[in-house]
Amino acid sequence: MNIVLFKAEEVLAGRVSVVDRRAKHIVKVLGSNVGDRLRVGIINGRMGQGRIISISRKPPFMVELLLELTKVPESKPTIDLLLALPRPIMLKRIFSQATALGVGRFYLIHAKRVEKSFWNGSILKKEQYQKQLIQGLEQAVDTTLPEVIVHQRFKPFAEDVLPEIKKEYSHLLLAHPGVNNTLVDTITEKPEKVLLAVGPEGGWLEYELNKFKGQGFKSFAIGERILKVDTAVIALHSQVSLAREFLAGSAKVASRPKS
Amino acid sequence: MNIVLFKAEEVLAGRVSVVDRRAKHIVKVLGSNVGDRLRVGIINGRMGQGRIISISRKPPFMVELLLELTKVPESKPTIDLLLALPRPIMLKRIFSQATALGVGRFYLIHAKRVEKSFWNGSILKKEQYQKQLIQGLEQAVDTTLPEVIVHQRFKPFAEDVLPEIKKEYSHLLLAHPGVNNTLVDTITEKPEKVLLAVGPEGGWLEYELNKFKGQGFKSFAIGERILKVDTAVIALHSQVSLAREFLAGSAKVASRPKS
Repeated sequence: MNIVLFKAEEVLAGRVSVVDRRAKHIVKVLGSNVGDRLRVGIINGRMGQGRIISISRKPPFMVELLLELTKVPESKPTIDLLLALPRPIMLKRIFSQATALGVGRFYLIHAKRVEKSFWNGSILKKEQYQKQLIQGLEQAVDTTLPEVIVHQRFKPFAEDVLPEIKKEYSHLLLAHPGVNNTLVDTITEKPEKVLLAVGPEGGWLEYELNKFKGQGFKSFAIGERILKVDTAVIALHSQVSLAREFLAGSAKVASRPKS
Repeated sequence: MNIVLFKAEEVLAGRVSVVDRRAKHIVKVLGSNVGDRLRVGIINGRMGQGRIISISRKPPFMVELLLELTKVPESKPTIDLLLALPRPIMLKRIFSQATALGVGRFYLIHAKRVEKSFWNGSILKKEQYQKQLIQGLEQAVDTTLPEVIVHQRFKPFAEDVLPEIKKEYSHLLLAHPGVNNTLVDTITEKPEKVLLAVGPEGGWLEYELNKFKGQGFKSFAIGERILKVDTAVIALHSQVSLAREFLAGSAKVASRPKS
């Protein structure tokens, strides 16, 4: 927990009082005292400092803070993820790890190779996945909660939803093991906003691939090694971020006036 | 399990017989029958096909295979990791995930911010960590087991060991949160062989940083977000791999004869 986050409705007249895992963390891990200042933030709001004005160091722990929220959060992350619904235990990890890396929106959709039982996972309940998203923000020191959008039917998503949402993106990328292209071949201009689609274990079907390609998605692979979905999501996200920097650099070079 | 791996000593006259989790996987997950061919490999040896010549489909499961091993494994991965010993539960995950991404050697060393108790973790026992490494190989379809080298004292490692091993590498990289450089600024030539150092939670001490810099390590960060070590290792490894491709591309461009 590198920042202590509160919901806006927890704050009253610039003060907040907590008794849950956050209080325990402040007492047991940080070992804080009255007068100490902590990095704090409001979910989907500002960041700043919280000064401890009272503390109860025995269970049930209680900490009261006076907030000074000055820092407007950075703009939203510019990578959104479109995932064929992963196995619940993977999805749980992906929610927190990808949020730590920075994701604006998670789209979760069905695909032929998604096991039907995955749709019964409790991680799809808002109160469950929000815990994971908040853990990711607490890790990365951010306050902007990603959105989670669920579409349980592939065809309506691909035919009706995707044509609308794709307008938001400069790049539509589809990770697909076995393709020869890597990111170096696939994006040649600095991506402003990316929608990155990652398939199920075993990959997308040809029919599904064609739907994505028909909407303008470009497919690429990380390499020849087969990765689990949770590893792949982190690897892909990190590569898209680095590609942006490499291409920002070359844009600078390219725009130099010729001598 | 995308490849079924055997130890060389399990194979007798081109045949192997298994009764453990591999047999269970072949029976229960793959649902294979006599005559089916599976992707198989010998740890630190060749890959090929295994034809099932007998199978017992009830517990305890048993599968006998006739092996045809034709494919010499690719050359060793060109990224080695130097990790300040992570928390055992993290290290377990890092062993399998980083092995799936491709690591030649893991160096595990002490640092001031490594909790002493981490050195008691059972994951440091060879029979424990080999399980994780093999899972990584089974996932990625590889046979070359990474080496694991442990140095429990920082100073002798930094002063006596590092000067010797560093000769193997074209690039010595040190991931350090808070540094302004990214990989784009840090490596400008295609890296042939990389030693990538990743610090403990909370980072390296100034003293430790200086030891690495004194040996020629260049420090960089992924970005401003703070990541857990397991997320960071995957992200960093993936970025180094992509940087290699970007720079291989620009080397090609640079070596074109001028018109």
